[in-house]
Amino acid sequence: MMLIPLLLALAAAPEKPAKPTAGQIAEAAPASSWGAIAAEDLLVMDFADGQRVVIWLAPDFAPVHVANIRKIARSGFWSTATIYRVQDNYVTQWGGGEDKAPPAGIVVQPPAEYEWVPKAAVRNPYKDAYAAVTGFTASGWAVAGDGKRQWLPHCYGAVGVARDLAPSVGTGADLYTVIGHAPRHLDRNIAVVGRVIDGMGALSARPRGTGGGLGLYEDPKQFIPIKRIAIASDLPAAEQPRFQYFKPSAKEFPKILEARANRGPPFFDVPSGAADLCNLPVPVRKVP
Amino acid sequence: MMLIPLLLALAAAPEKPAKPTAGQIAEAAPASSWGAIAAEDLLVMDFADGQRVVIWLAPDFAPVHVANIRKIARSGFWSTATIYRVQDNYVTQWGGGEDKAPPAGIVVQPPAEYEWVPKAAVRNPYKDAYAAVTGFTASGWAVAGDGKRQWLPHCYGAVGVARDLAPSVGTGADLYTVIGHAPRHLDRNIAVVGRVIDGMGALSARPRGTGGGLGLYEDPKQFIPIKRIAIASDLPAAEQPRFQYFKPSAKEFPKILEARANRGPPFFDVPSGAADLCNLPVPVRKVP
Repeated sequence: MMLIPLLLALAAAPEKPAKPTAGQIAEAAPASSWGAIAAEDLLVMDFADGQRVVIWLAPDFAPVHVANIRKIARSGFWSTATIYRVQDNYVTQWGGGEDKAPPAGIVVQPPAEYEWVPKAAVRNPYKDAYAAVTGFTASGWAVAGDGKRQWLPHCYGAVGVARDLAPSVGTGADLYTVIGHAPRHLDRNIAVVGRVIDGMGALSARPRGTGGGLGLYEDPKQFIPIKRIAIASDLPAAEQPRFQYFKPSAKEFPKILEARANRGPPFFDVPSGAADLCNLPVPVRKVP
Repeated sequence: MMLIPLLLALAAAPEKPAKPTAGQIAEAAPASSWGAIAAEDLLVMDFADGQRVVIWLAPDFAPVHVANIRKIARSGFWSTATIYRVQDNYVTQWGGGEDKAPPAGIVVQPPAEYEWVPKAAVRNPYKDAYAAVTGFTASGWAVAGDGKRQWLPHCYGAVGVARDLAPSVGTGADLYTVIGHAPRHLDRNIAVVGRVIDGMGALSARPRGTGGGLGLYEDPKQFIPIKRIAIASDLPAAEQPRFQYFKPSAKEFPKILEARANRGPPFFDVPSGAADLCNLPVPVRKVP
């Protein structure tokens, strides 16, 4: 009784021909279908145990916040940063913490970069429960919108800027990532500044906190220190992560979406015919 | 700079009046709006470190699988059960493992209890990306359907029965729960048999595995033993968990849905006007 496969659709020799997966379509595409991610758009977080998290920043959508984040990383402010909040099915949050004054030179009251006049995007043919229009920009980002405005959705792994009660806007000194079902009700209420593209387990597999119904670590001994937070382009070349994204403009991209909406044999018998926006992540990989 | 609140909407004294949350509406409702969950429908998993997981089983929807699960729990088969797979943004899987023959007396080839003729349900007014019709049964379960068939959705915390490649149907000896964004493409392809209602962190906050691209623990030393798996009604009375669910037929239920779709001040400025089915869990609580 081989029960491991839950989603393994490749290893066996099934009666029905296997349908190519989204990952297989992406890997089979030519190198020209992949675009480079700039090193200055990668925020690297290293833990003492060797785990590394890589976050792809989104300066096209939240330029003031991302400029702040780069300055904060370079200032040394995060030398004492920790994970101090992990709320199950919601977020892991880290940074300077509430009592630490932000470093000099950043914009202390950034504009609310929550939504904007729509940027061009390849249309997503699949229905979304939250937004009338969804799609993917040429730069590799999933976007949601209502036709008049556009925003970045709070999908699994999305990175946002923690803030106080509205109309407060955070600086970027404290960040969170989504570790559960997409809390899309946060869309347009907080600035999304990026997406975790590697090492997500170092944020999602942390003990849940018990404080305030918010997953706060109640004892400072629980705080998980982050050894280093840096912009990749500031690291020695040998330590820099290098990633690519699959271009939404590439001709294979619609096939990738279709393969996610209609998974096939040998594991799947009933295709969904649907895929919500957060189940359609733009493929990302380490540079081969 | 108070950054903790990300979602705290109660503690402060804001200028705008606070809108009641779904949780507040549920707690303010009379006792008659809550229904008891039968002890024989609760599967209890205890870990050596004291963590406990409680799963609400769904015999109304997957009766053969749930009967199997009760028999397996009573047989002692799970005395060596472990968590052996944790795949980020997907599932944690546990049970006997692939090499162990199932216990005597169970249905080795259960019917595929993946979908059924629709049972009565309170209609969900909010749009779903995957199903034309969604709602909530009087017994407290969120359901999806196309008008002709109905099924249980793979939301965060949903518990399903691991199986081999289609058309294999699992026995219930190996189970998984969703620990990421709802993989609704599994709907109608695997039997959903319940929902984690307490202690989810003991399944979701485990180190991610690295095997086979499936999150398998590659070294048996990584396997996480489960000290005891039992049906609650078989435990000494003092050890039995007791839970209630909020009745979808109760008059406050539509207000709970509305409060989730349109969150308000002091944290939220822009209501979604939407809520996907997996962001509308039926409230569950310990018996007060």
